[in-house]
Amino acid sequence: MRVLLAVLLFVVAPARAQILPSWNDGDARARIVAFVQAVTEQGGKSYVAPEERVATFDNDGTLWAEQPLYFQFVFMLEQVKAAAPKHPEWKDNPVFKALMAHDKSELTKMSHKPLLALIGVANSGMTVDAYDRSVRDWLAAARHPKFKRPYTDLVYQPMQELLAYLRANGFKTYIVSGGSIEFMRPWVEKAYGIPPEQVVGTVSQVEFETKGGKPVLRRKAKLDFVDDGPGKPVGIYRSIGRRPIAAFGNSDGDLQMLQFTAAGEGRRLMLLVHHDDAEREFAYDRASNVGKLDKAWDEARAKNWIVVSMKSDWKRIFAFEP
Amino acid sequence: MRVLLAVLLFVVAPARAQILPSWNDGDARARIVAFVQAVTEQGGKSYVAPEERVATFDNDGTLWAEQPLYFQFVFMLEQVKAAAPKHPEWKDNPVFKALMAHDKSELTKMSHKPLLALIGVANSGMTVDAYDRSVRDWLAAARHPKFKRPYTDLVYQPMQELLAYLRANGFKTYIVSGGSIEFMRPWVEKAYGIPPEQVVGTVSQVEFETKGGKPVLRRKAKLDFVDDGPGKPVGIYRSIGRRPIAAFGNSDGDLQMLQFTAAGEGRRLMLLVHHDDAEREFAYDRASNVGKLDKAWDEARAKNWIVVSMKSDWKRIFAFEP
Repeated sequence: MRVLLAVLLFVVAPARAQILPSWNDGDARARIVAFVQAVTEQGGKSYVAPEERVATFDNDGTLWAEQPLYFQFVFMLEQVKAAAPKHPEWKDNPVFKALMAHDKSELTKMSHKPLLALIGVANSGMTVDAYDRSVRDWLAAARHPKFKRPYTDLVYQPMQELLAYLRANGFKTYIVSGGSIEFMRPWVEKAYGIPPEQVVGTVSQVEFETKGGKPVLRRKAKLDFVDDGPGKPVGIYRSIGRRPIAAFGNSDGDLQMLQFTAAGEGRRLMLLVHHDDAEREFAYDRASNVGKLDKAWDEARAKNWIVVSMKSDWKRIFAFEP
Repeated sequence: MRVLLAVLLFVVAPARAQILPSWNDGDARARIVAFVQAVTEQGGKSYVAPEERVATFDNDGTLWAEQPLYFQFVFMLEQVKAAAPKHPEWKDNPVFKALMAHDKSELTKMSHKPLLALIGVANSGMTVDAYDRSVRDWLAAARHPKFKRPYTDLVYQPMQELLAYLRANGFKTYIVSGGSIEFMRPWVEKAYGIPPEQVVGTVSQVEFETKGGKPVLRRKAKLDFVDDGPGKPVGIYRSIGRRPIAAFGNSDGDLQMLQFTAAGEGRRLMLLVHHDDAEREFAYDRASNVGKLDKAWDEARAKNWIVVSMKSDWKRIFAFEP
């Protein structure tokens, strides 16, 4: 018996210690673990069947950084610059002018839609395969202005651990982002273990063509669907068809996804990441144009959703930290 | 050694015999099995990693019957009748007139889009949950005019076996249908083992609302996306983000999905179901308004895609056959 006990302790103890290692012991971590234990406990009153264990994650500001400007918009700037000579009609477009002037304050005040519309035009006519390559090429070469590293290094280590922990407990993890599916799919599988079919996002219009005998999908200038704010529950309905039991965000653009998640039956987990660590990352919330956290913060407090302090809840933010 | 051999034979032989039991030995069955063996053979030149084993199936006429009228349109007739008193403006609508007159010949000549638009209006204002219940209620009560059975009994047994066989070999099976996601999701998981998140189809506009404090998704009259013909590769791109290596259809509405599948690298499987069994099911192809098989048939012949004869390739069509 003593040998058996020793073996059991040897097997079980390290496994426990390894749950969410980059999270400090605290309320946020404890509530996440309690939730996962409750919904996976066979015969327990909060048990949820594996196929219903759907967890949805915002991307920008929740799984990776988003300051000083959404990384997709930085990519867009390059794409628009490259396409500008073919589009003399842009010269009076306020979004284009702000882009060319590198006027960040003007840009961040604009809503997603006109910005994404401009990138739509810039890349219309490209096949989806060519676009995919352009995203990969940019990600390989571009460096973040503060961290001087590839943007894909700026994924949050504690959230990667959370994704893996949920999957190890039978959850299916989805991204539900205001960013476009074609900007995320080239890198999120490697970064987060989330395959292309579990990426829900803003959708550009594409058309099937067989010109020249070879079938291709070609990008059009129009956006078909904006997966932000009230669009997030709609995107979840269209692409997943199940209500999440856990949802993770960081800004007002995630509020409706969390409300939709909270409105289901049974035990639920709603969590917001609060950017309060100017030293290790960035500090911003109610007054920010990028990743504004205001209404969702109030609702999180009123409804006792988890608000993660990056400063105090996370031992480290990035894998590259010393 | 003899004992080991006997054990091996005992284990392997019955497993082999059980592959696609409702399929007659013939070219179609042999080519399906050869394809699956080729793409799953570790180290083989046609090997495909499990995550890329994507198989897409049309629904109407491929996985279940579609005559004398797409079953969703039969459902629509009932829904439109129920909503008619609230819509006096319909009286001059040719689709509505054909519906009320039970004029099948007129109805089947119309394209999907105006018919689906009408059902959109009929059900606009409903929450998606109420709509889901209306589909379930109708399916529980309705009977097919020829077979006098619930419509969900009219799924093809050989195709159910094919779905299970592909999944047993690491494939992820998707529906890619001109029918709407909300009409399919309530029953396809039970019928085919395909979960809601693997149902790609025509999409109605829905909106997120928090009127009265409870968040709901409410149906609007507009169609957002028609997943038919050239829409099918687009739907695959939007929802799956991988090119299928195997695609299954039965009509010209599936042609572009099969072309898109065929255009990928490596070994591919393209298959059409030909309805040539008037006795056990229905016989129709080039001249039919429902499930017209004309251009896709020519292309299948020219490119040596598999064309399944329901009459000669399938031992039985429905599970309820004696």
